[in-house]
Amino acid sequence: MAIETVLKSHPRKTLIELHSFVSCIEACIQCAETCTSCADACLAEERVQTLRKCIRLDLDCADICRTTARILTRQTEPEPQFMRILLDVCVTMCGLCARECETHAEMHRHCRICAEACRECERNSRQLLAELPGGAGLAH
Amino acid sequence: MAIETVLKSHPRKTLIELHSFVSCIEACIQCAETCTSCADACLAEERVQTLRKCIRLDLDCADICRTTARILTRQTEPEPQFMRILLDVCVTMCGLCARECETHAEMHRHCRICAEACRECERNSRQLLAELPGGAGLAH
Amino acid sequence: MAIETVLKSHPRKTLIELHSFVSCIEACIQCAETCTSCADACLAEERVQTLRKCIRLDLDCADICRTTARILTRQTEPEPQFMRILLDVCVTMCGLCARECETHAEMHRHCRICAEACRECERNSRQLLAELPGGAGLAH
Amino acid sequence: MAIETVLKSHPRKTLIELHSFVSCIEACIQCAETCTSCADACLAEERVQTLRKCIRLDLDCADICRTTARILTRQTEPEPQFMRILLDVCVTMCGLCARECETHAEMHRHCRICAEACRECERNSRQLLAELPGGAGLAH
Repeated sequence: MAIETVLKSHPRKTLIELHSFVSCIEACIQCAETCTSCADACLAEERVQTLRKCIRLDLDCADICRTTARILTRQTEPEPQFMRILLDVCVTMCGLCARECETHAEMHRHCRICAEACRECERNSRQLLAELPGGAGLAH
Repeated sequence: MAIETVLKSHPRKTLIELHSFVSCIEACIQCAETCTSCADACLAEERVQTLRKCIRLDLDCADICRTTARILTRQTEPEPQFMRILLDVCVTMCGLCARECETHAEMHRHCRICAEACRECERNSRQLLAELPGGAGLAH
Repeated sequence: MAIETVLKSHPRKTLIELHSFVSCIEACIQCAETCTSCADACLAEERVQTLRKCIRLDLDCADICRTTARILTRQTEPEPQFMRILLDVCVTMCGLCARECETHAEMHRHCRICAEACRECERNSRQLLAELPGGAGLAH
Repeated sequence: MAIETVLKSHPRKTLIELHSFVSCIEACIQCAETCTSCADACLAEERVQTLRKCIRLDLDCADICRTTARILTRQTEPEPQFMRILLDVCVTMCGLCARECETHAEMHRHCRICAEACRECERNSRQLLAELPGGAGLAH
């Protein structure tokens, strides 16, 4: 993705190694897009009435990951302490959504793919959280 | 705002008294809109180079409050524990943005109005956080 | 809503009379919020499988109205020609969503309320479109 | 990107060949992210007062492209006619933002990268517009 290229052209240096931001932003964007698609695929399933919780969490997770990606992308006057609590919310949200999708993974391929995207985003957010100034203390 | 009317027509009852959700959602929407406008007004100011941090925090705060409003609005299969940590992020973000806007409140009327909207949202989020099942323990 | 107050404090004057922008932005925000709630209420309905189209259009309409509100709010270096084609999309989207919600208005109160919010937003967008420089020619 | 994989797992077939949707969605997401970063990079530039229009258009373009990506992703009960007018708005927005960024492309590398992402998104949106049922008539 071109996000690395554009972040490299920013007049300010990233707080920590650029690559850690890039991986996390990419995982957030990927997860947001996959959740948007999974919610929509669930809605089209014959037994949509069994997928209410999955749809709801997909929509929430898409919103959280998209917002996290935007805020991590901004490198002007960053607030590492705030990024940390936001990443913590992102880790929790991705975990909730992954857990729900995993219960339908056998039945619906989109839920399996979505669970994987959530776990990938959870991992990357946890990783960035551990690297940001302030230590690894906030993660639950 | 009509948000109370539409939430009342939802087939599921809200987790706690409807009014607490309504006040917080309204404050989040108001704050998101005010921050969007303040960021844009700062950008038009002659001495925009002194308002970088304010613009950046306004943009972040608009994103966070808009996402919080969306997630609080959804009453199907709610996750009160997640709402709590999200509200906590919202309280922190509004506090950061208010503090920055307050430093320009004498100079720029939009910063004063924005600081007030952030403080109002911070108060309402803290209030809902205290009322949601799970107690007041998470707030920093 | 405080949007009038914050827009009044902007260093640049609005393209046309402030009140026209304020009414349209408020209607967009109201519509976005109502659509978010209606989609979620539909999802909780027993016969959710009959409400697929309604949910889908509610989600689209919430996204379009929220984006329209953000762009209309920005008064720095405005592009009236672009605002016009965006308002045209907003009018079309609100019309589509209202039409769908109206077919369920007898059955579901949230659909009735949502249809009204969409029609109100459609009216206000059409009004602003007629007042913006460039004439009324673009509306379908 | 995994968007192709998740769209393939959707219970409904896309309106037209899947690949056309995938390319356009990816270009929209890429453009939204690049615009978000370019707006932030402009804000950090020493001569930010000369980049007001660029920042404003970057923010608008990020909002439009993100909304377009979401709506194109939804394949349940699609409205091809609406997708067409939305793609038309996306083409116009990307063209406006590209044109502005191109005027700073020599000076700021982020503006050059952003202009390229906008042009790529403009091209892909135009392409999908031409392939969607209803013909190529709407594009300006």
